[in-house]
Amino acid sequence: MPKLKKIPKPTITRLSHYYRQLELMSFDGYRMVSSEKLAWLCQVNPAQVRKDLGYFGEFGIRGVGYDVQQLQAQIKKILAVNRDWNTAIAGLGRLGSALLQHKNLPERGFKCVAVFDVDPKKVGTVTPTGLVIKHINEMKEAVEELDIKIGIITTPPAEAQKVADYFFDAGINAILNFSPTRIQAPDCCLVENIDFTVRLDILTYKLTRGLN
Amino acid sequence: MPKLKKIPKPTITRLSHYYRQLELMSFDGYRMVSSEKLAWLCQVNPAQVRKDLGYFGEFGIRGVGYDVQQLQAQIKKILAVNRDWNTAIAGLGRLGSALLQHKNLPERGFKCVAVFDVDPKKVGTVTPTGLVIKHINEMKEAVEELDIKIGIITTPPAEAQKVADYFFDAGINAILNFSPTRIQAPDCCLVENIDFTVRLDILTYKLTRGLN
Repeated sequence: MPKLKKIPKPTITRLSHYYRQLELMSFDGYRMVSSEKLAWLCQVNPAQVRKDLGYFGEFGIRGVGYDVQQLQAQIKKILAVNRDWNTAIAGLGRLGSALLQHKNLPERGFKCVAVFDVDPKKVGTVTPTGLVIKHINEMKEAVEELDIKIGIITTPPAEAQKVADYFFDAGINAILNFSPTRIQAPDCCLVENIDFTVRLDILTYKLTRGLN
Repeated sequence: MPKLKKIPKPTITRLSHYYRQLELMSFDGYRMVSSEKLAWLCQVNPAQVRKDLGYFGEFGIRGVGYDVQQLQAQIKKILAVNRDWNTAIAGLGRLGSALLQHKNLPERGFKCVAVFDVDPKKVGTVTPTGLVIKHINEMKEAVEELDIKIGIITTPPAEAQKVADYFFDAGINAILNFSPTRIQAPDCCLVENIDFTVRLDILTYKLTRGLN
């Protein structure tokens, strides 16, 4: 696929949501879907669906809609999730352990092939998924050997930057960060933050003001 | 605080990030911060910081900056996190259990006062935090009795909508949804979605295209 012009991030996020709905529709046996229905399912407006998909080509048939499986395959390719991605989790506390065993991730092609911690009680033990927990000092070797592309950080906040630096040094360019720490990253690297409390703050802000 | 005009959601998200950085600075003993420094810490530009804060009043002193503790208190008030919020978690699998014991949430005033499941092996047992797991049929009663304001959904995808409907029926207007299901909610209700895989899709999209 050729390198495209810069697409707005919300478009990528929505593509990911479209993909999930198409998957469900496909599972339920639907063959065609209109932009109206897809929009309704994803809680956006139909013009938005058409605009988002329009960045990547002409997928639908005017007046008929989209072929569910075909559109699914096309979005899969756009999002580059038509292949498997090896990930590593750093920080094997409760959240890290929950993620490690979260069915959703391998089902979507995100395979956790290595886990790291610094706790001497954990390093060297085996996870329920059969991985030997490594010390973060072993990261560089593991990243090369296991072709790890994405680092997932579930450490306590105070450790997050240090662990991120280990990932970057080991050649990882993409981090999914579950700690509330804002990671400082080199320009070449990507960090996506998942901070539950930020989302809770949005809810409380709106709840208090009655805004929707 | 009077009802304000509608503020862009990214502004609220950034306020939440500013707040976290101010907290860290306050902890480290800083008394003043410039918009440049706050912007750098939060990876936005200084004009953005000034614009975001400008929606809510005049907080800084031109050429001097912001008083760290004062700005922290003001944002706390804006986000309505200057009070405690009672939450309930539905779905006591690994992720739900990890969240229940996640230190970050009570530290920020989000107190989980009830937990729900449907598994007969879990209902009636006691969590490590001392809560008796209730059946979702008991939700309405619990929400009233315990003044629960926010529902957190950590069920399998197929159960998420049903549980959300229970929350809505019980009078909950705000949901934090960790399942990949897009919740259909009444107009009066708010849903914030935390879908890990959507964030991973954003990373893979960018990794493949070398975009930042």
